[in-house]
Amino acid sequence: MPAPFDKVAIIGLGLIGSSIARATREAMPGLQLSGFDAEDGIRDRARGLQLVDQLPDDAAEAVDNADLVILCVPVGAMGAAAAAIAPSLKPAAIITDVGSSKASVAETLRQALPGATIIPGHPIAGTENSGPEAGFATLFKGRWSILTPAADAPMHAIEKLTAFWSALGAKVECMDPRQHDLTLAVTSHLPHLIAYTIVGTARELENVTEGEVIKYSAGGFRDFTRIAASNPTMWRDIFLSNKEAVLDVLDRFRGDLAGLEQAIRDDDGATLHDWFSRTRAIRRAIIDQGQDVAAADFGRASSPAQPKG
Amino acid sequence: MPAPFDKVAIIGLGLIGSSIARATREAMPGLQLSGFDAEDGIRDRARGLQLVDQLPDDAAEAVDNADLVILCVPVGAMGAAAAAIAPSLKPAAIITDVGSSKASVAETLRQALPGATIIPGHPIAGTENSGPEAGFATLFKGRWSILTPAADAPMHAIEKLTAFWSALGAKVECMDPRQHDLTLAVTSHLPHLIAYTIVGTARELENVTEGEVIKYSAGGFRDFTRIAASNPTMWRDIFLSNKEAVLDVLDRFRGDLAGLEQAIRDDDGATLHDWFSRTRAIRRAIIDQGQDVAAADFGRASSPAQPKG
Repeated sequence: MPAPFDKVAIIGLGLIGSSIARATREAMPGLQLSGFDAEDGIRDRARGLQLVDQLPDDAAEAVDNADLVILCVPVGAMGAAAAAIAPSLKPAAIITDVGSSKASVAETLRQALPGATIIPGHPIAGTENSGPEAGFATLFKGRWSILTPAADAPMHAIEKLTAFWSALGAKVECMDPRQHDLTLAVTSHLPHLIAYTIVGTARELENVTEGEVIKYSAGGFRDFTRIAASNPTMWRDIFLSNKEAVLDVLDRFRGDLAGLEQAIRDDDGATLHDWFSRTRAIRRAIIDQGQDVAAADFGRASSPAQPKG
Repeated sequence: MPAPFDKVAIIGLGLIGSSIARATREAMPGLQLSGFDAEDGIRDRARGLQLVDQLPDDAAEAVDNADLVILCVPVGAMGAAAAAIAPSLKPAAIITDVGSSKASVAETLRQALPGATIIPGHPIAGTENSGPEAGFATLFKGRWSILTPAADAPMHAIEKLTAFWSALGAKVECMDPRQHDLTLAVTSHLPHLIAYTIVGTARELENVTEGEVIKYSAGGFRDFTRIAASNPTMWRDIFLSNKEAVLDVLDRFRGDLAGLEQAIRDDDGATLHDWFSRTRAIRRAIIDQGQDVAAADFGRASSPAQPKG
């Protein structure tokens, strides 16, 4: 299949942007790739890694003649990034992004780029690491990439962007932006907020030292620390831009937590056992659908594959 | 080094008991191993796996002439397990356990086995899988195993048990039982309670389908589902037996969560960024001390090692 675009510009060269660059190079070697990052240091590191063909010091120059522009910056920086590229955008260019909240980003891009063809997007993939060195070409393989086009978005633009993500190995799905924001509030934003909270809570306990927390972290805590090591700027922006949905699911979580707390207080073992039994089914479904590995403890130890039981 | 015991009896042959059996076989092949499980089906499966030398249908028979008895049953079953072995315990036998709460288990064992040499213990190791098939010999390698002996416990018993765990690859530390219970409430019990809660919350949302939760779980949620796939009986018992410490740290967690929630409501990005930045240091310390792997995303994807940045 020929590449759906002749030239792609990637604005923001962190974990996601640099992974898109690497994956594009592998999947569509003939395609022309340009890039930009607002940080001088990141541009220098990206040049050292030879991530793209052109890496000018100016965002407008990077998007010159590009058919697809992918904004890979924290959602709070989308407006500024869009404004910076506006002067030299090709009229037929498609603009997309990879931000983790979609309704507010769509509105920001519409305002900054009136008349442009904007198809907001969000690949559900990442790791706890940041920066151009952290990216890798297989990041999107088998993962979902969500597009949230407006009702009047041109079908050919959606099709070309779908072909692009498919070429990187992703599975593409179109979704209403508000549904995206609510779903991701549950599957991503609330888990991150809770992980950040508990790791902070553990740091500040006066009766348990930080040394003890670190030593005995293998009991479950270390999984939370991985999530809580994610990029602080990116996550600050996500919580502020998807505020309504995050507060909504947080409210439900708090209610459920209060219910389990009461069961502990009341020595109500039946309620606890019942709740703890139901959550196993979700894990099995995630593994069956290829969205996680079945290896025990994520395969950290040299352990056997998960038994059937 | 000669094995510190001639005969070891393992009561309870799930993930931990079967891992101890496998690790003991590898590290101390001359040692005589017996085992028992209260469930007929587990005894049959353990016999099929040839986990131990003797596997009678009676707990008292299994501990006959054993120098060390390790109780590997859920903490709520410790009293019954101790009562079942009491009639045939050798007077010089050392009794230990692997339960995740220590003050209440110590009291239970003292009452069930008056006059016996009891050194309560807790290896900080495990996976989300259960049953005799899930165990593996390297589970304890490089992990901490905590002993919580009473002030009047005989030193030679502590030394022999320390030698046993060291032979399995664990690092041993003695600790006050109440300090253990508070520390584990933070590093293990609260993380499990929260993971169980959020996975349940996600199941019951009316505006997001279970299918959507599963499809888009790669955003962070799937890590919680792994923890929430742990043994429900074991965890019910832990929360009920370490109630006071769990409720104490839960209270602090709830306070911290309310603080971050308020920051989101107030668009207070500085507070969020500050909190999210501090939690990264803990992750680095856990990796530096060998209590987790540095591979991005736990090495799930074929990603590079963590960069220095």
